[in-house]
Amino acid sequence: MNESPAGTPAPAVPRRPARLTPLPLSAVRLDPASLLGGRQEVNAAATIPHCVDNIERTGVIENFRRLVGVPAVPDGSFQGMLFADSDLYKTLEAIGWEMARTGTDRWAGLLSDVAELLEQVQTPAGYLNTRVQGTPGAEPFSQLEHSHELYCAGHLIQAAVAIHRGGGDPRFLTIARRFADLIARTFTADAAPRIDGHPEVETALIELYRETGEESYLRAAELQIERRGHGVLPPGGLGSQYYQDHLPVRAATEAIGHSVRQLYLAAGVTDLQLENGDETLLHAMTQLWDSAFGTKMYITGGHGSRHRDEAYGDPYELPPDRAYAETCASIAALQWSWRLLLATGRARYAEEMERALLNAIAASTTADGTAFFYSNPLQLRTGHDGSHEDAPSERLPWYECACCPPNLARLLASVHGYAATSDASGLQLHLLTAGSFTADTLTVVVETGYPWSGEVLMSIRGRGELAVRIPPWAAGATAAATGAKVLAEPTAGDYLRVSCDDGAIVRITLPMKPRLVRADRRVDAVRGCVAIERGPIVYCVEQADLPDGVTVEQLALDPSGAILEEVSHPVHLRLPAIITPLDTTLYQPYPPASTASTPVTITAIPYYTWANREPGAMRVWLPLA
Amino acid sequence: MNESPAGTPAPAVPRRPARLTPLPLSAVRLDPASLLGGRQEVNAAATIPHCVDNIERTGVIENFRRLVGVPAVPDGSFQGMLFADSDLYKTLEAIGWEMARTGTDRWAGLLSDVAELLEQVQTPAGYLNTRVQGTPGAEPFSQLEHSHELYCAGHLIQAAVAIHRGGGDPRFLTIARRFADLIARTFTADAAPRIDGHPEVETALIELYRETGEESYLRAAELQIERRGHGVLPPGGLGSQYYQDHLPVRAATEAIGHSVRQLYLAAGVTDLQLENGDETLLHAMTQLWDSAFGTKMYITGGHGSRHRDEAYGDPYELPPDRAYAETCASIAALQWSWRLLLATGRARYAEEMERALLNAIAASTTADGTAFFYSNPLQLRTGHDGSHEDAPSERLPWYECACCPPNLARLLASVHGYAATSDASGLQLHLLTAGSFTADTLTVVVETGYPWSGEVLMSIRGRGELAVRIPPWAAGATAAATGAKVLAEPTAGDYLRVSCDDGAIVRITLPMKPRLVRADRRVDAVRGCVAIERGPIVYCVEQADLPDGVTVEQLALDPSGAILEEVSHPVHLRLPAIITPLDTTLYQPYPPASTASTPVTITAIPYYTWANREPGAMRVWLPLA
Repeated sequence: MNESPAGTPAPAVPRRPARLTPLPLSAVRLDPASLLGGRQEVNAAATIPHCVDNIERTGVIENFRRLVGVPAVPDGSFQGMLFADSDLYKTLEAIGWEMARTGTDRWAGLLSDVAELLEQVQTPAGYLNTRVQGTPGAEPFSQLEHSHELYCAGHLIQAAVAIHRGGGDPRFLTIARRFADLIARTFTADAAPRIDGHPEVETALIELYRETGEESYLRAAELQIERRGHGVLPPGGLGSQYYQDHLPVRAATEAIGHSVRQLYLAAGVTDLQLENGDETLLHAMTQLWDSAFGTKMYITGGHGSRHRDEAYGDPYELPPDRAYAETCASIAALQWSWRLLLATGRARYAEEMERALLNAIAASTTADGTAFFYSNPLQLRTGHDGSHEDAPSERLPWYECACCPPNLARLLASVHGYAATSDASGLQLHLLTAGSFTADTLTVVVETGYPWSGEVLMSIRGRGELAVRIPPWAAGATAAATGAKVLAEPTAGDYLRVSCDDGAIVRITLPMKPRLVRADRRVDAVRGCVAIERGPIVYCVEQADLPDGVTVEQLALDPSGAILEEVSHPVHLRLPAIITPLDTTLYQPYPPASTASTPVTITAIPYYTWANREPGAMRVWLPLA
Repeated sequence: MNESPAGTPAPAVPRRPARLTPLPLSAVRLDPASLLGGRQEVNAAATIPHCVDNIERTGVIENFRRLVGVPAVPDGSFQGMLFADSDLYKTLEAIGWEMARTGTDRWAGLLSDVAELLEQVQTPAGYLNTRVQGTPGAEPFSQLEHSHELYCAGHLIQAAVAIHRGGGDPRFLTIARRFADLIARTFTADAAPRIDGHPEVETALIELYRETGEESYLRAAELQIERRGHGVLPPGGLGSQYYQDHLPVRAATEAIGHSVRQLYLAAGVTDLQLENGDETLLHAMTQLWDSAFGTKMYITGGHGSRHRDEAYGDPYELPPDRAYAETCASIAALQWSWRLLLATGRARYAEEMERALLNAIAASTTADGTAFFYSNPLQLRTGHDGSHEDAPSERLPWYECACCPPNLARLLASVHGYAATSDASGLQLHLLTAGSFTADTLTVVVETGYPWSGEVLMSIRGRGELAVRIPPWAAGATAAATGAKVLAEPTAGDYLRVSCDDGAIVRITLPMKPRLVRADRRVDAVRGCVAIERGPIVYCVEQADLPDGVTVEQLALDPSGAILEEVSHPVHLRLPAIITPLDTTLYQPYPPASTASTPVTITAIPYYTWANREPGAMRVWLPLA
């Protein structure tokens, strides 16, 4: 058990002191009326039960029952994707974090039943994978390029750590340790080096090391990381980039290949760096981060522009319509940025966590928490064929490949753990949200309607330095304090530092005027377009808000007109635009004949709220008139 | 044997009289100095031998040898994709057409050896597929959603027809008929209807019907067509659109799913309509064609914008960088347009044949005919990762999935068959190219440097009506005739009709000034850009022509400046442009700060000639300054 923070550790608390230390989960409470806090409530009340129902419905638990001779349906065979086990494990992890957050005992019976099943399925050696164990002749760890065995093991381990931190059934940690011991033994003894085709076990093994102090887990993670990029895996039809085996991690400074694999690996490498202090790893990770977040990220915080191979595209290849932007990729990106934030204390990493949380990740569920996007496009065309789950027209209750819904559940149950940190001087608030945050010497109670309001009121008990992240778009932010000393005027993109005495009040005002944003000219796919942001929220225009007979494709924004706000939560915007007739020929002479256009005022809604009415066209990037 | 045209029939000569009748292959000769004629020479001298070498190298022929116990390498197993047999068959088809074109006996030995192998591999029932026959326990026609058995059979049949027309080894037609007889028997007797996941056999069976007069082949094709769209195939993970099984052919009027399957099916349906005269089929096909060519086609004549599932995208989803635009799709599109041209006589179908031939299809090979693009993007970015054969930076000598190279070979060997037709009144010239063309009552000798020159001189022997297609961009074309009567002034997008006496001379002048072309505003991916065309040729800008230190991404075209032509074959253009500094931030406030731009004159080259120097960035669509 890692003793450094008091209470329940948040995800990824380094054993070796880092630049910043996460607050214990028990030291943070998000206001349920806040956007993130509200999402946590919906997650607990709806998403986690929905995941539990679906792992049963889709046969994931049945895969375990069948192996121990107690199937609910006789004569069945393995159901689901190769990595179906991980659907269960991610759901268990969500339950673990939820227990840590609220102390709920709602899932105690389920945990007990599942622990018993896992104990029975696990081999005496510690191995546990229903796909391999249920396939006659299949040898453990023999098809690692596509078997996802260590990936599934990693999710089991992370579930066990979360359940342990949440005070749940202790058998999970025992099961996870037995499997981790097997992995450490097996892979350390490899004659020919082996790695898993899907990175994930690295962060998990390091979390287990943090939870237990067992150093062989850290070494096992290090082996997976250091072996990568030496052509260990057969590239097959997908190429070595897909498997993150194209270059050693210190040389692989362009984000490439399968985006979730890339981002989980990067999180694992950064975890390793946090524990071993290897500056060459940190250098590579900051370069890689610049590539991913500086040339390949959607304005919503989505990652991975290619449906084919679920991959990163070339730099600036960011089509809004075919954005893959897998929900899991944004979650992985957040986990990675969090680790770099801990390592460096730099605001940029927290900025991108907020962007993803309030846009791509928030968009991936319905308001009621029971339907999900797997890919998160920034544009849906009139006439879109939504028949395939690869690119549906609305959120679906579940997926054939169901990695995203339980991933969301585990993130949201622990998201308060990513909001604030501490260091020797005091407390750092990275995610602006109503709630309360306690570090060693001070507690900060935050009252705010953010992200809709720019007023943030902070009441301090105890004393110490409070650092509050001022977002990069908040030039002109002001700060006032009583019983506290503002150490420097607020600067956009940096932390406002305030030296606080007990009873201090700090008030920050952020400018919330809607902004037009353009992309680097190399992002060809949105040339001549702008996006609209207000605070950290990206907006979109949806067919459901347009007058009858007008399609999204006919709109162009008048950039000189004033954007009005509708006072509501969430805030809607009213935009000055024009409507032009549709073209009638696919290719035609330039310049176009002049056409009559009609002025119109249109509504824009937060991107994350799209597709909560009937299916229809949507776009984030609007052409300029 | 179909007697209607004298000499060797071209591809797809209907038995039932159509609006237009193809000229016999022996009645057409393309000038080897013309673009298309030159391509035929390179195809004969380099591409066909290259295909022959590669089907040997990749084990395609070995798959046959192994089945009859004479493998070159003992103890080998099946090599290549499920449909590897078709690589051989398409190469054989190319050889057949090449024999019909030139009478070459270069391949007689190969044909004899292969015929002997096929005879030995073919079962007494007539079945022939090395993948199925080489897989223990595999049952013929039992996995049709992915086995490609009828697809391969179709290519065998088409090869046999071409070899028969070329006067080659007669055993191929016998082998093909035995297989076709089996297919006709088997599928007619189906208790539960079965279709192949990859349409292709439809056109083949109808060609074999045309070659032999055997009506059961036409009926077998009709069964494959009429059964489609009733959910006959399990949709699996790819969805029923992928297999063209989502809607019956009369209702499926949006081009969708796997583009090559869509286009081969459409060609087959149109073949069926040509033979049975069913107007409901023609109506559906013209609607489908409008969808494909009017909302989903690249300006180069490429089809299919999605790498994922090799599919058509939504209407107007036409990203230039991720254009899949498979070479086979453009070939299939040409074959389909040809059939609609025969059915209707409308110029639009011939226009799109020319667009594809001189742009997407021409771009798919190197000048020397031995390296190929599978996908044909309209943009390659600086920093493109070309490590995967899915999106290489330059043409590759061969592909793991080698459908395209031999498909090109078979098209080019027969492309003269698509240039002209006849009807009761005379001869129609659809593809403007130097060469000679003979119909029943007249011969036309065409002298022209087209597509570089707009001067087309036609000398007529015999008498009759000559119809010459005036391209849609050729407003202002003029015609002059001696010994002939021009029946109406030339109209862009229609046929110029000239009543000719023996010895007549007809001279057409087409305006060849370079043109700026824009796309429908719904093609978001090229907003704010123009393409440059001159005559039928689409141009591009390539990194190799830019000054040191300037990248393609920095360019913007000045649309008000004059475009100059360099007198060369092919004609290069000189464009007025500006260079702007690269942006440094992915997302930033709008409007941008003003930046200094530098005027520059840049070279544009025909798109089809790109990537014949070092690999580098390229773009067809240029941003406007």
